[in-house]
Amino acid sequence: MKTFSFQLKTPARTAFIDITSIIQEVVNNNRYESGIITVFTPHTTAGITINENADPDVKHDLDYKINALIPKEDPAYTHYEGNSDSHLKSSLFSPFLTLIFENKRCILGMWQAVYFCEFDGPRTRTVYIKILPDTPNS
Amino acid sequence: MKTFSFQLKTPARTAFIDITSIIQEVVNNNRYESGIITVFTPHTTAGITINENADPDVKHDLDYKINALIPKEDPAYTHYEGNSDSHLKSSLFSPFLTLIFENKRCILGMWQAVYFCEFDGPRTRTVYIKILPDTPNS
Amino acid sequence: MKTFSFQLKTPARTAFIDITSIIQEVVNNNRYESGIITVFTPHTTAGITINENADPDVKHDLDYKINALIPKEDPAYTHYEGNSDSHLKSSLFSPFLTLIFENKRCILGMWQAVYFCEFDGPRTRTVYIKILPDTPNS
Repeated sequence: MKTFSFQLKTPARTAFIDITSIIQEVVNNNRYESGIITVFTPHTTAGITINENADPDVKHDLDYKINALIPKEDPAYTHYEGNSDSHLKSSLFSPFLTLIFENKRCILGMWQAVYFCEFDGPRTRTVYIKILPDTPNS
Repeated sequence: MKTFSFQLKTPARTAFIDITSIIQEVVNNNRYESGIITVFTPHTTAGITINENADPDVKHDLDYKINALIPKEDPAYTHYEGNSDSHLKSSLFSPFLTLIFENKRCILGMWQAVYFCEFDGPRTRTVYIKILPDTPNS
Repeated sequence: MKTFSFQLKTPARTAFIDITSIIQEVVNNNRYESGIITVFTPHTTAGITINENADPDVKHDLDYKINALIPKEDPAYTHYEGNSDSHLKSSLFSPFLTLIFENKRCILGMWQAVYFCEFDGPRTRTVYIKILPDTPNS
């Protein structure tokens, strides 16, 4: 199957957007029973991560603490676009993720969701999803 | 081959536990010669990482410094469970890892080990391991 | 195809070295049309990341800020080699990366490059690249 892609609009400079159901739908729509899923975003100021799907305070605290560690403003930054913090957050959260699927279900913990991480929005962003089977006849 | 899983008990709130030999054993027990290994943990306050296998002081310093950067207590945290630091560490270390294997051996540097990272223990934790061959007849 | 590897010499204690063209060349030289690429470095004081390929100030700011957060010197470090900062940076940037390729082209954003991250150089370092097809006949 060709690489699947979709776009999303992010609402703010920093945001965590749940994309778990989109990934599961791609797994549903391909013919493989089991294998791995690569999720990749082609942006240098965004990321893909896994974190808690229940209490929204977790997203708040992730956002608060990463911004406290890596603030937008720092007099020593030299990059003219004013988003050096976003670039570092992108490398630390990383713009890709691998999941395992079995019997056509993503293996995720009961509290896990996959999030698109916006670090320099609001923008329109792209995500790619690639499915590989564990065996050709799986 | 179906996804392999195992459980481990972690000894403390934060700990790095060497799981390299378990991963190599899964490679030994499947029929493929070469490919990639996905290691995944279904928890939002844990991670999987690679670091030094020799001097235990490295683990000590990793633990010391990440806790200094992201302490358990911060008056600005809002999550009621008191483990917001654990969630952020999980996203930064990430709950998965990919390794390459060739001739039935994990490719790892002589100083590298794979560690399960506990950031909110002690608990019983699960790890999944999925093997994909590089070619169907490999 | 066997795992491809190459070596590079890093110029300084910390450096980001663009290896994108080497990865694309490995894709060009294998017979598969589409799939995923695993890039892995077998060192515990280095990493692989994706970030901006245009303004060199971004690399400068990444280097500045990660060193400000995790400085080389800290009186609480216990590891005798004096590179505990390098080990933590390696775990946070991670020593591996997954890319998708389609029609024999790595999927990367127009501003994205893949960087080898040196955190304890200058040294001679090794990188492994493994290609997996999405289907055996792709």
